[in-house]
Amino acid sequence: MTKDSSNQMWGGRFAAGPDAIMEAINASIGFDKRLAAQDIAGSRAHAAMLATQGIVSDNDAEAIREGLLTVLSEIEGGTFEFSTALEDIHMNVEARLKEIIGEPAGRLHTGRSRNDQVATDFKLWVRDQIDAAVSGLEALQRALLTQAEVGADWVMPGFTHLQTAQPVTWGHHMMAYVEMFGRDASRLADARARMNECPLGAAALAGTSFPIDREATARDLGFDRPAANSLDAVSDRDFALEFLGVASICAMHLSRMAEELVIWSSAQFRFVTLSDRFSTGSSIMPQKKNPDAAELIRAKIGRIFGANVALMMVMKGLPLAYSKDMQEDKEQVFDAADNLMLALAAMEGMVRDMAANRAALHAAAGSGFSTATDLADWLVRVLNMPFREAHHVTGSLVALAESRGCDLPDLSLEDMQGVHGAITADVFGVLGVENSVASRVSYGGTAPEQVRAQVARWKERLG
Amino acid sequence: MTKDSSNQMWGGRFAAGPDAIMEAINASIGFDKRLAAQDIAGSRAHAAMLATQGIVSDNDAEAIREGLLTVLSEIEGGTFEFSTALEDIHMNVEARLKEIIGEPAGRLHTGRSRNDQVATDFKLWVRDQIDAAVSGLEALQRALLTQAEVGADWVMPGFTHLQTAQPVTWGHHMMAYVEMFGRDASRLADARARMNECPLGAAALAGTSFPIDREATARDLGFDRPAANSLDAVSDRDFALEFLGVASICAMHLSRMAEELVIWSSAQFRFVTLSDRFSTGSSIMPQKKNPDAAELIRAKIGRIFGANVALMMVMKGLPLAYSKDMQEDKEQVFDAADNLMLALAAMEGMVRDMAANRAALHAAAGSGFSTATDLADWLVRVLNMPFREAHHVTGSLVALAESRGCDLPDLSLEDMQGVHGAITADVFGVLGVENSVASRVSYGGTAPEQVRAQVARWKERLG
Amino acid sequence: MTKDSSNQMWGGRFAAGPDAIMEAINASIGFDKRLAAQDIAGSRAHAAMLATQGIVSDNDAEAIREGLLTVLSEIEGGTFEFSTALEDIHMNVEARLKEIIGEPAGRLHTGRSRNDQVATDFKLWVRDQIDAAVSGLEALQRALLTQAEVGADWVMPGFTHLQTAQPVTWGHHMMAYVEMFGRDASRLADARARMNECPLGAAALAGTSFPIDREATARDLGFDRPAANSLDAVSDRDFALEFLGVASICAMHLSRMAEELVIWSSAQFRFVTLSDRFSTGSSIMPQKKNPDAAELIRAKIGRIFGANVALMMVMKGLPLAYSKDMQEDKEQVFDAADNLMLALAAMEGMVRDMAANRAALHAAAGSGFSTATDLADWLVRVLNMPFREAHHVTGSLVALAESRGCDLPDLSLEDMQGVHGAITADVFGVLGVENSVASRVSYGGTAPEQVRAQVARWKERLG
Amino acid sequence: MTKDSSNQMWGGRFAAGPDAIMEAINASIGFDKRLAAQDIAGSRAHAAMLATQGIVSDNDAEAIREGLLTVLSEIEGGTFEFSTALEDIHMNVEARLKEIIGEPAGRLHTGRSRNDQVATDFKLWVRDQIDAAVSGLEALQRALLTQAEVGADWVMPGFTHLQTAQPVTWGHHMMAYVEMFGRDASRLADARARMNECPLGAAALAGTSFPIDREATARDLGFDRPAANSLDAVSDRDFALEFLGVASICAMHLSRMAEELVIWSSAQFRFVTLSDRFSTGSSIMPQKKNPDAAELIRAKIGRIFGANVALMMVMKGLPLAYSKDMQEDKEQVFDAADNLMLALAAMEGMVRDMAANRAALHAAAGSGFSTATDLADWLVRVLNMPFREAHHVTGSLVALAESRGCDLPDLSLEDMQGVHGAITADVFGVLGVENSVASRVSYGGTAPEQVRAQVARWKERLG
Repeated sequence: MTKDSSNQMWGGRFAAGPDAIMEAINASIGFDKRLAAQDIAGSRAHAAMLATQGIVSDNDAEAIREGLLTVLSEIEGGTFEFSTALEDIHMNVEARLKEIIGEPAGRLHTGRSRNDQVATDFKLWVRDQIDAAVSGLEALQRALLTQAEVGADWVMPGFTHLQTAQPVTWGHHMMAYVEMFGRDASRLADARARMNECPLGAAALAGTSFPIDREATARDLGFDRPAANSLDAVSDRDFALEFLGVASICAMHLSRMAEELVIWSSAQFRFVTLSDRFSTGSSIMPQKKNPDAAELIRAKIGRIFGANVALMMVMKGLPLAYSKDMQEDKEQVFDAADNLMLALAAMEGMVRDMAANRAALHAAAGSGFSTATDLADWLVRVLNMPFREAHHVTGSLVALAESRGCDLPDLSLEDMQGVHGAITADVFGVLGVENSVASRVSYGGTAPEQVRAQVARWKERLG
Repeated sequence: MTKDSSNQMWGGRFAAGPDAIMEAINASIGFDKRLAAQDIAGSRAHAAMLATQGIVSDNDAEAIREGLLTVLSEIEGGTFEFSTALEDIHMNVEARLKEIIGEPAGRLHTGRSRNDQVATDFKLWVRDQIDAAVSGLEALQRALLTQAEVGADWVMPGFTHLQTAQPVTWGHHMMAYVEMFGRDASRLADARARMNECPLGAAALAGTSFPIDREATARDLGFDRPAANSLDAVSDRDFALEFLGVASICAMHLSRMAEELVIWSSAQFRFVTLSDRFSTGSSIMPQKKNPDAAELIRAKIGRIFGANVALMMVMKGLPLAYSKDMQEDKEQVFDAADNLMLALAAMEGMVRDMAANRAALHAAAGSGFSTATDLADWLVRVLNMPFREAHHVTGSLVALAESRGCDLPDLSLEDMQGVHGAITADVFGVLGVENSVASRVSYGGTAPEQVRAQVARWKERLG
Repeated sequence: MTKDSSNQMWGGRFAAGPDAIMEAINASIGFDKRLAAQDIAGSRAHAAMLATQGIVSDNDAEAIREGLLTVLSEIEGGTFEFSTALEDIHMNVEARLKEIIGEPAGRLHTGRSRNDQVATDFKLWVRDQIDAAVSGLEALQRALLTQAEVGADWVMPGFTHLQTAQPVTWGHHMMAYVEMFGRDASRLADARARMNECPLGAAALAGTSFPIDREATARDLGFDRPAANSLDAVSDRDFALEFLGVASICAMHLSRMAEELVIWSSAQFRFVTLSDRFSTGSSIMPQKKNPDAAELIRAKIGRIFGANVALMMVMKGLPLAYSKDMQEDKEQVFDAADNLMLALAAMEGMVRDMAANRAALHAAAGSGFSTATDLADWLVRVLNMPFREAHHVTGSLVALAESRGCDLPDLSLEDMQGVHGAITADVFGVLGVENSVASRVSYGGTAPEQVRAQVARWKERLG
Repeated sequence: MTKDSSNQMWGGRFAAGPDAIMEAINASIGFDKRLAAQDIAGSRAHAAMLATQGIVSDNDAEAIREGLLTVLSEIEGGTFEFSTALEDIHMNVEARLKEIIGEPAGRLHTGRSRNDQVATDFKLWVRDQIDAAVSGLEALQRALLTQAEVGADWVMPGFTHLQTAQPVTWGHHMMAYVEMFGRDASRLADARARMNECPLGAAALAGTSFPIDREATARDLGFDRPAANSLDAVSDRDFALEFLGVASICAMHLSRMAEELVIWSSAQFRFVTLSDRFSTGSSIMPQKKNPDAAELIRAKIGRIFGANVALMMVMKGLPLAYSKDMQEDKEQVFDAADNLMLALAAMEGMVRDMAANRAALHAAAGSGFSTATDLADWLVRVLNMPFREAHHVTGSLVALAESRGCDLPDLSLEDMQGVHGAITADVFGVLGVENSVASRVSYGGTAPEQVRAQVARWKERLG
C-alpha cells in the first residue's frame, strides 16, 4: 500500500488485484531488512563451519564470506537495492551474493533452511537489544544515583494513596527506582542467558544429514550452545515473548516515575522543575512547561505491552513446527525495542537535568501530622505501651492539635500530659521531620545514612 | 533514530544528546502526515466559516482555501518537504501555507487550537476507515454468498470439538460467516454514527470567545452535529478505541475462518483447495501449497487487538483535558486499520478463488454415525418417545452398529427391532446424510431450502 | 516453606487422581448456576412453544412449566442441592425437574440441545447486565448533573498536561463526564439491539427436524427475532465480547475520573473533599482521608479489560461450531459485570457526596497567566491582528508580567501600550477568570450559560 | 425481562446504600483469607525477632507465637469466623489473637505495618506457587519423556503450515515440548530467586526506628535477604507480574500442545487416542470422544494472560508508595495460579494416558513427497551439486512422480537418470521415511539416536 491510499475506499486500495494483495500481506522485506547484519553474521559463521567440516571447499567458503562482507557494506552504505519479489532479507542477501560471486553462492544454503536461519537472526537481534537495554538502564540508574547522593537528606513527604503518610528523603525515593530498574536489568540478564542457544542447523525442522558442527557455529556467534531439539528450535519464539514481558515491566516502572514527574511538575506540587530540553513551552504562556517527555514515557507502556499481547495472541494455539503466523513476530519486537530505548534515554536525560525544589519538598513534608507515627513509636519504645494502645493515644493527640489548628510539635507538654500523663519532654525529639527521617535506620529505611549505604552498594555494583 | 541504528549499543543510538532524544520522542510528523488530506479539509471548512461569520475577510478566507489546495496537491504529488522541526502535520501545513499566501495564513488559526484540530482530523480519518472496512466486509460477504449459493446442498460434516457431530451443508457453513461479518459491519455503522460529532471549535479545551458557527463546520465536514462539551471534545478518544474494539472482533472472526482454511487444506482433511495466488509453494515439494495468506490472516488479530490494548493502557487514568500521552493514539490505529483492510482483502480473494472438494466433504459427512441424532428425533416424532429415552435407544443402536463394523443405515430392520420392537422401515428415510440435512428445516437450519432463503435475504440486504 | 504450604504442592493438589482433575477442569456448575433464572425462563418458553406446535401435549407442557417454577423457587430459596456430577446448570435443573414431575421432564429437551440452550441463557444474562449498567450510568449522570448545575459558574483551572491552561467551570468539567457516560450508555444500547436475536432452536448446530416455531420462543423471551444461522447461533460469543469491550471503555472513563479525584484530594490540590463514607481514615492520622474507593475504581479497568483480553484469546482461531474452550466465557463476563456495577455505584455515591472546594478552585484558576489566550483573542478581535501575531504580542506581555512578579491584570495600561501601542483599557475586561469563562460562549464552551444549556439538554434526555 | 432479573437491576443491587457499596468494593477478606498460613508464618517470625532484639519480652513473644498457632488451627479446621468488618486477613488474625491471648497481641504490630505485611504474605504465597508449578512441569516432562522413549523411532509427519514437510519421529515431537516446559521451569526458578527478598520491616514505607533485625526475619522465612529499599518494598508487585508473565508463556506452550491434541484426535487425523478419563462422550454417539480437557487447556491462556494484562493495567502509572489499587493484585494471581496448576495436571494426565496410533502416523509420514529434501541433500552430498541446483533437480523429479501418480521411491532409476544422468541406485537408500529420519543425526535432529540422547540428558537433569 502506498502512503497515499489512506483516504481511498476499498476498491482503490489494492488496485492490482489478488497478486498485489498477496504480496502486501506476504512479503517481509519491508521490515526484516533490519536483520541484515545478523543474517550476514550467521551466514558467515555457517560458511566457515561448512568448510571446516569438508562440506564445501575452503575456496568456496572464502568467496562466500568475502562476498557477504561486500553485501553488508552495500547495505550499510545505502546502495543495496531491496527487492520485494525476493520476499525477505535472506533471499535478498543470497541473490545479491550470487550476482557477486556466482556459483559458490548456491552452496551456502547447504544444511540449513530459512526456518533456522530466521530464528538465529532474530535471536541475535534481540540479544543486541537486551545488551542495549541493560546499558540504558545502567545509565538511568547512574543518573538516579547522582540525584540520590546529592539529596540523601532532603526531606519530602512520603505518600500512600497520594496522601502524606510519613516524611522520607529525596534520596530514598530516587533509590526506590534504582531498585526497580535493577530488577529490570536482572530480568534481561536472565532472559539473555536462557535464549542464548543457537537454532542454526535445525534446518527446516528435522535437522540435517550433512555432518555439520552445530557447536562450532553456536560458538562463533557467541551462543552458549546449540538448541537441543530442532523442532523446538524453529518453532520457538519464547525469547521474543520474554523480552517483551521484561520490557513491559520496565515500561511499567517508567510509567510510574513519569506519572510522579507529571504530578510533581504541576503548579500545585512544584516538587521538581524539569529542564527546558525535556519540556515544551507555549509561546503564549511562557511560564508553562508541559512535561511532554514524561507524558510520552508514561504512554510507552501501551505500545510495549500491546506488542506483548499481540505476539502472545499470535503464538496461542499454533501447532508445531513453523507456521507463517510467526512472521508477525518481528515488527512487534522492533517497535517495542525502539520505544523502550527511547523511553529509557528520555528518562535518563530528564533525571539528569531535573532540579528538585528542596524548599517545597520540605514544606510539604511537615504538613498533615506526618510524624504521628514517630510519636506512637516513642510511646511504645519509651513508655513500653503496646503498639495498638500507642496508636490510640496518638490519635487523641492529633485530634487535639487539629482542634487547636496547630501541628504536633506545637502542642505544649501540658497538652500532651493531659492526654497521657507519662509523656515527657523527650517526646519533642521525635516530632520534627528531620528527626523522623533520621530515626528510620532500619535496613533499607529512609534515614540518610541508610540512603547513603544504598547508594554506595549500587555504585559498587554498577562499577 | 535512523534505520541503521538497530545494531548499535546504547551510546550510539542518540548521538546528538538530549535534544535529539527529545525530538525523537516528541515529533509526530513521521506518522501524522497521513492525516494531511483530513487536516486540509478541516482547515478549509474552518476558513469558510470564519468568513461567513465575519471573523476574517472573504478575501483572506479565499486565499487560505486556495492556498491549502496547493499544499494538498504538493503533498499528493510528493513534492512537499516535511520538516521534523515543525513537529506535526498541522504546523507543516500552516508553515507552507504562509510561504504561499503570506500574512492571511496567520488568521487561519483563529478560534481553534491544535487540540480540536487533531481530534477533528483523526476522526475524519477513522471515519474513512470505517467506510472502507464496511466495503471490504461487503465484498467478502458477496464472495461467501457465491460459495453458499453454489454449495447450498453440498453435504459436509458439522463439527463440535473438531469431532463430527451432524451433517451440515457447505452453504450453511459459509452463511455462518456472512452473519458474523454482518455483525461486524453493523458494529462499524453504530460506531460511525456515534463518533460523528465534530470537535472543531472546542479550541484548546474551553471553547472560544469568537462568534464561530460550529454547526456550519460540522455540516461542511459531514458530521451530524458539533460535539457538545469542549473539554470532552479534545480529551475524547472513544472513537479510536471503539474502532479498534470492533476491528478486533472482526479480526477474531477472520482468525476462526483462517484456522478452518488451514485445517481444511491439510493432507488429512483436503476439504478445500486454495488457489496458487494465495498460497506459496516449495520448488522442492511442488504438491505442497502452504496456506500462507490464511496463516497471516489468522495472526492479524494479534496486532489489531494489541493496538486496542495499547491505546486502552494509554488512556487509563489520564486526567482531563489533553495530555501528550494521547499522541500515541495514531500509530496504533493506522497499523490496525491497514492490517484489517489487508486481511479482509486477502480473505475475500481466498474465498473467491477457493474450491471446495465436494467429494471429500461428502465422504467425511457420513462417517462417525453423524445421523444418530436424526434417528433419535425419529423415535420421538414417530413413536412419541420422550427425548431422553430416544437418546438411550439410539445409543444402543449405535453400539450395535459399531460392534458390527458398519454404519447406521447398514443395520437391518431386524437388528433395529431387536433393540426396540416398534421401529419400522420408515426409519431408514432419515439415516442418509442428504435426508438428514434436508430435514433440518427449522428457521436458520442447515436444510438447503433454509440456506437458500438466507442467501436471498442477504442478497437483498447487500443490494 | 511453611508446614501448610507443602500440602499445596503438586502431589496434594489433586489427591484423587485423573478423575478429580477432569472434574475440576470440566464442571461448570460452580459458576453457571448464576444462569438459573435465565435457564428456567428459556425452558418455560420452549415448553410452551412445543405444546403450541403439537410436539408435546398441553398436559406435559403444563407439568414442565409448573415444575420449573418449583425448581426456581427452590434455587431462590437456597434449598436446591447443586450436583457437580451433573456438570452444569442445565442438567441440574432438568434432573430435579424429573424428580418432581417424572416422565414428561424427558420431553423438554426435544428440538434443542445444550449448545443453543446455554447461548440463550447467557444472552439473557448479559442483556440484564446491559440494562443494569444503563441504569447505573444514568444514576451517575444524574449525580454529575446535580454537581454541574450547582457549580455551573464556579471557576477552576482547566488543565492540559496537568498544567493550568485556561479557566473553566466546575459545571463544565462535570458535564464532560456526562458526555462520556452518555456514550457508554449509547454503546450499551447498540450492543443490546444487536445481540437481541434468539439462539434457541439452533439445536446442536444444524437446526432440527421438529416443526418448532422459533419466532414464538424468541418473542416470548423478549428477543427481536431468532438468530438467522444455526451454526453461527451456537458458536457466536460476539455479544459477550462486545459487552466486555463497551464495559472496558466505560471503565476507562471511570479510571480517568477516579484519577482526578485522587489528585484533587491530595493536600497539594485540595480541590474536593470526599465524604467519609467513600474514604478510609487512619486512627493515627485522623486528618488523613485515603480516597480508597476512587483508587479501587481506577483499578477496575484492569480486571474488566483483562476479561476482554481473556475471552478474545479464547475465541481466537476456534473452528466452528461449538468448542469446549467457550465454557471459559462466563466467569470472565460475570466478574467484569459485577465489578462494573460496583464501580458505577461507588462512583455515583462519591459524586453525590463530594464537596468541591470552591475557594481553592478559584484561587488555582487565576494562577499561571491562565487568561493569556483571552488577551490574544482580544488583540485579534479588536485590533484585527492575525492570530499568530497576537500570540507573539501576548507572549511579550506575559514575559513582562513575569519579570514584574505580577499577573496580567496587574499590568498597567502604560505597560501594555509599551508592548503594543494600540492596546486600550478595554482589554482589562477579558483578563479576569470570570470574564474569561463568561466569554467562552461558543457551542459546548465553558461559559456558564453554555453549561446550563448542556445541563438542560441532558435533563430532558434522561427524563 | 424475567421477574427475577428485575431484582438484579440497579436499585436492588446495593440495597443498603453507600455503606454497603463501600464495604463491597473495599473489603478484601473474601479473597485474602487464602493468605492465612503465610500471614501467620510472617507474624511468628516477626514476633521471634522482636523478642531477640529486646523489643518485646520473651514471654509476650511466646504467647503471640503460640496464640498464632491456635488461630491457624482454627482456620485450617474451618471453625474460624471471618469478619468483613475487619476488612482483611491481617486484622482478622490479629483480632482473634487478642481474644485468645489478650494484651500482648497489641505488641505484635510493633515495627511493621500492613503494607510490608501484605507484601510479605503475598510473596510467600507466590513463592509456593512457583514451587508447585515447577513440580507440575517436571511431572509433565516425565510423562512426555516416557512417550518419547517408547516412540523414539516411530515415524510421523513433521508439519510446517500444517502441511507435511519432512518425516520426524514421535519421540522428537514429544521432546520439543520437554524443551519448552524446561524453559518454563527455568523462568520460574529465575523469578523465584529474584523475588526472594523480604519486605518485612519496611513498615508503612519509610522503615522504622525500632532496632529490628531484618536479616533475621528474612532468614526465618526462607528469604535470601531483606529488600533493600523500604519504599520500593511496599510498592513493588514485580514478583506477581513476573509470575503471571512466566505462567502466560507456559500457558501458551500448553495451548499449542492442546491444539495439536485436538487436531490429532479428529476423525481426519486419528494420530492419537485420548483416554476416556480426559474426554467426554456422547450417549448418542458413542464413538465420539470430545477432547474436552485439551480444549479447556487450550483456553486457559486466556484467563492466565488476561490476569497479566489486568495487573499490568492496575500498576500502570501508580505513584509511590502504596495505593489501594494494588489490592486488585491477589484475585488475578490466585485465579491464574489455580488454573495453571489445573492445566498442567490435566495435560500430564492426558499425556500419560494417550496412545499414539503408530500405523496412522507412519502412513501419513510417507505421503506428500516428504523425503524430497533427502533427495536434494543426496544430490549435494554425493554429486557435489550446489544446493540451489539440487533443489531444482529435485523439483523436476517430484513433478515427474506426481505426473505418474506415484511417490519418489516408486520412480525407476531410468526415470531418475532421465532427469539427471549422474544419479545412481544409491539414491534409493535415502528415500524411505525410516531412512530419512535415521539420517538426521545432526545435534538435536530427529534421528532416533539423537532423540534417545535428548531423553537421556533430560532424565539426568530431572534426577
